[in-house]
Amino acid sequence: MNASEPSHYDLETDVLVVGYGCAGAAAAFEAASAGAEVLVLDKAGGPGGASALSGGEIYLGGGTPIQRACGFDDSPEQMAAFLRAALGPGADEQKIALYSAHSVDHFHWLVERGVPFKPSLWDSPTWVPPTDDGLMWLGENSWPFAELAAPAPRGHRPTAQDFGGKLLMDVLVSAAESAGVTAQYDTAVTDLIAAENGSAVGVRARRYGQELTVRARRGIILTTGGFVDNDQMLAAHAPRLLGHTKVSAGTDDGSGIRMAQAIGAAVRHMSTGQVGVSLVPGFAARGLVVNGRGQRFVTEDTYPGRIGQAALFRQDMDIWVILDEQAYEEVPEPQRWGVQPTHVAETPDELGALLGLPAGALEATLARYNEFAAGGTDPDFHKSSRWLRPLTPPLAAIDIKAGVRPPGQTTARRGTGASVFTLGGLHTTVDGEVLHLDGTPIPGLYAAGRASAGLHGEGYISGTSLGDGTYFGRRAGAAATATDRLSVPIIGTGH
Amino acid sequence: MNASEPSHYDLETDVLVVGYGCAGAAAAFEAASAGAEVLVLDKAGGPGGASALSGGEIYLGGGTPIQRACGFDDSPEQMAAFLRAALGPGADEQKIALYSAHSVDHFHWLVERGVPFKPSLWDSPTWVPPTDDGLMWLGENSWPFAELAAPAPRGHRPTAQDFGGKLLMDVLVSAAESAGVTAQYDTAVTDLIAAENGSAVGVRARRYGQELTVRARRGIILTTGGFVDNDQMLAAHAPRLLGHTKVSAGTDDGSGIRMAQAIGAAVRHMSTGQVGVSLVPGFAARGLVVNGRGQRFVTEDTYPGRIGQAALFRQDMDIWVILDEQAYEEVPEPQRWGVQPTHVAETPDELGALLGLPAGALEATLARYNEFAAGGTDPDFHKSSRWLRPLTPPLAAIDIKAGVRPPGQTTARRGTGASVFTLGGLHTTVDGEVLHLDGTPIPGLYAAGRASAGLHGEGYISGTSLGDGTYFGRRAGAAATATDRLSVPIIGTGH
Repeated sequence: MNASEPSHYDLETDVLVVGYGCAGAAAAFEAASAGAEVLVLDKAGGPGGASALSGGEIYLGGGTPIQRACGFDDSPEQMAAFLRAALGPGADEQKIALYSAHSVDHFHWLVERGVPFKPSLWDSPTWVPPTDDGLMWLGENSWPFAELAAPAPRGHRPTAQDFGGKLLMDVLVSAAESAGVTAQYDTAVTDLIAAENGSAVGVRARRYGQELTVRARRGIILTTGGFVDNDQMLAAHAPRLLGHTKVSAGTDDGSGIRMAQAIGAAVRHMSTGQVGVSLVPGFAARGLVVNGRGQRFVTEDTYPGRIGQAALFRQDMDIWVILDEQAYEEVPEPQRWGVQPTHVAETPDELGALLGLPAGALEATLARYNEFAAGGTDPDFHKSSRWLRPLTPPLAAIDIKAGVRPPGQTTARRGTGASVFTLGGLHTTVDGEVLHLDGTPIPGLYAAGRASAGLHGEGYISGTSLGDGTYFGRRAGAAATATDRLSVPIIGTGH
Repeated sequence: MNASEPSHYDLETDVLVVGYGCAGAAAAFEAASAGAEVLVLDKAGGPGGASALSGGEIYLGGGTPIQRACGFDDSPEQMAAFLRAALGPGADEQKIALYSAHSVDHFHWLVERGVPFKPSLWDSPTWVPPTDDGLMWLGENSWPFAELAAPAPRGHRPTAQDFGGKLLMDVLVSAAESAGVTAQYDTAVTDLIAAENGSAVGVRARRYGQELTVRARRGIILTTGGFVDNDQMLAAHAPRLLGHTKVSAGTDDGSGIRMAQAIGAAVRHMSTGQVGVSLVPGFAARGLVVNGRGQRFVTEDTYPGRIGQAALFRQDMDIWVILDEQAYEEVPEPQRWGVQPTHVAETPDELGALLGLPAGALEATLARYNEFAAGGTDPDFHKSSRWLRPLTPPLAAIDIKAGVRPPGQTTARRGTGASVFTLGGLHTTVDGEVLHLDGTPIPGLYAAGRASAGLHGEGYISGTSLGDGTYFGRRAGAAATATDRLSVPIIGTGH
């Protein structure tokens, strides 16, 4: 690889961060705060990435002040038990344990940077609260998780007018700048430069058509996001995510993953993805979610992204929400986000026929649901008794593929009903070191955020991306700075 | 990488084949037949690999003599249409088109090598025919495939006493030897040696603790199998396959995939797997297959491996087969393979309670099935009317997790009921060239069989592994031989 090392570097820094989303900002802040010279490069015209477009939820627990103010006990152990179940199979148990153990500390770190959280709970399933409530459930109180770990709400959401992601990124970038971080935009890193011993020592980048080389004395931290914008990578690794709306700022092209792989980096769980669906959680909780055979297949009052994953990976997106008038009316109009029934009928059989479901299937499902709901139980999917009530005709159905836009979701494309991003990525240690295929860290190379697999196996819970991005971004920033690699021989730098 | 090139090679050949299963044998034969000096290395004590332990089915069609003798018309187009649907999402359409177009030729190639096929059809769903019939259905006549492509049976099975895989490998290895191929065993290839220009020029291997280097003048063909024997790779890429019985000869450790990745090779679909389950297809076709909520979820008369994939990837292996006495008795005793009901009860509710299903769920499913079966229809899963008949109590259930052993399957481990192997692997062209992460072929490096992703996306049909292994193995052998790389400068060979 030394054949490709340049005889001259245009720029030099201690720590180079590639990508300025939440993981990049957190990494840059910690590195600069520890005394490193830090340069951030982003291919976009400014900071933010997909993080700035997100709802801003951060998965935090173990007994944060917000949880306690809202009357909830929590512990790192219960938080870890939930995450192991919700993010698996294949979740990173070591990362989950650390992330949970340090979650209260990480909450304080966010608050100290300037992220505001309001100590009030939004107490229904939702993508994002329609209020400025700072705490929300993300499936912890729904089956099967409520039986696996003591339920506590752990979705922490920055106080913001609409989406919290923009506010979060404003705060983090401002903190990084105050710590001395410099950033350059419109600069697309294309390749890593490796020394003879295999360590990562610099990058090649392009800016306005010009090549730029940058040497990093201490470490390079890849926080370039996932690969949902790269259809070739989706086709190779996650074909079910193809064709849906891409949740990104348009720059999640997998570049960081690929440039690390080119010097031997290993990846994990490249087939997995988060699946937002065009579903109003208040409707789902009060009604039924059925597949193309009229069968229920998921607990309707869970974190709605879990419904989305089940819909895409297990039901081929062939799903419907079934409601009666009361269920529709019970959801206050502002929380309906303009979503209206796509089909209405006087009887379950008529509705099933309108939807193309097998004859009698919806009637059978509804009869069974109603029979048990009248007694306050749901033996099939254990929906909370709070939402159980027999549904009475006339009935309505909502076609998920119609592609409405609940807050907290990118507009799902009409015709698929799903908006997706990738969860798989580089295999990293708890300190963000990128592991080689041989299992050893690649010296000088770190990653965090969705360029890495992070906490995740197959499962996903809202807030774990901003959560593991900021937490493991911080660890990567600290680890890169602590590594004194100045003695690594670098050939011919121009400075 | 040239830093690691040796100053001396212990052996030298035109074409080096790593792994002596069906793909390796086919590749070696073609290369030797085209005039190349061919050396095969295998880490086992002899040839065969997982191929020799398999049922021997080869997926062939488009109008083979066996199909025609049994009265079936077929065409490459219909074969390709079936494979695109059955092996997707993510199936390799270009490979499928070629594989289907040349399938009759490939049949004749196999027959010319000495593989015997008997022109008679086994006409029920099965893993492997309990007879010596040479033709079998692999889901082509079941829903939804029968609606997507004109049904024709395409499972071709060598005439053999028990498993055809051993016979197939005996024939292929003998053909390779006759063509001049030499083989060395107990020799584990550990690394590829790449020249400065990135091309693969040789390998390092270990034999009885000694390192051995081999130079390949024309090409190296990796036919090392999948990675089901490597739990670390399963944990990283296919966590759902962990813990089940491994279908392999114990050497599917992913070594070929990893050594190619170490010089930049790309992979595809690493999360996917074939899932054999402890299920007697004759019972399933005549009965119901239900999940842990007593719901049907798959067409019971399809290729049973499709039931297996649905069970593991969509139902967490929480599945049961439900029968009545007539269904049990209709399967001739030899075809029951010793499988007996694990639970019996006088009513569906009693049986459901024994199985831990939700109250009333099995009764509801059975009532709906019986109502339509009496009229010869199955609006939910479109099982063929041939198998439709109302089931009459008393009823029996078979616990798939009990782990019985139908022929054609490795004994599934008691407690999981599944036996698995991996489908993902190296990204290859139709000529077996291994593609670099940058999308260009790595000069001198080829792969076939389960070291490559081959035809497959997420789906699997029996016979496509021996099928794509032999067919694309042949293409790789021919392509490697046709490449005159003798002019590539190689440093300091000792010969």
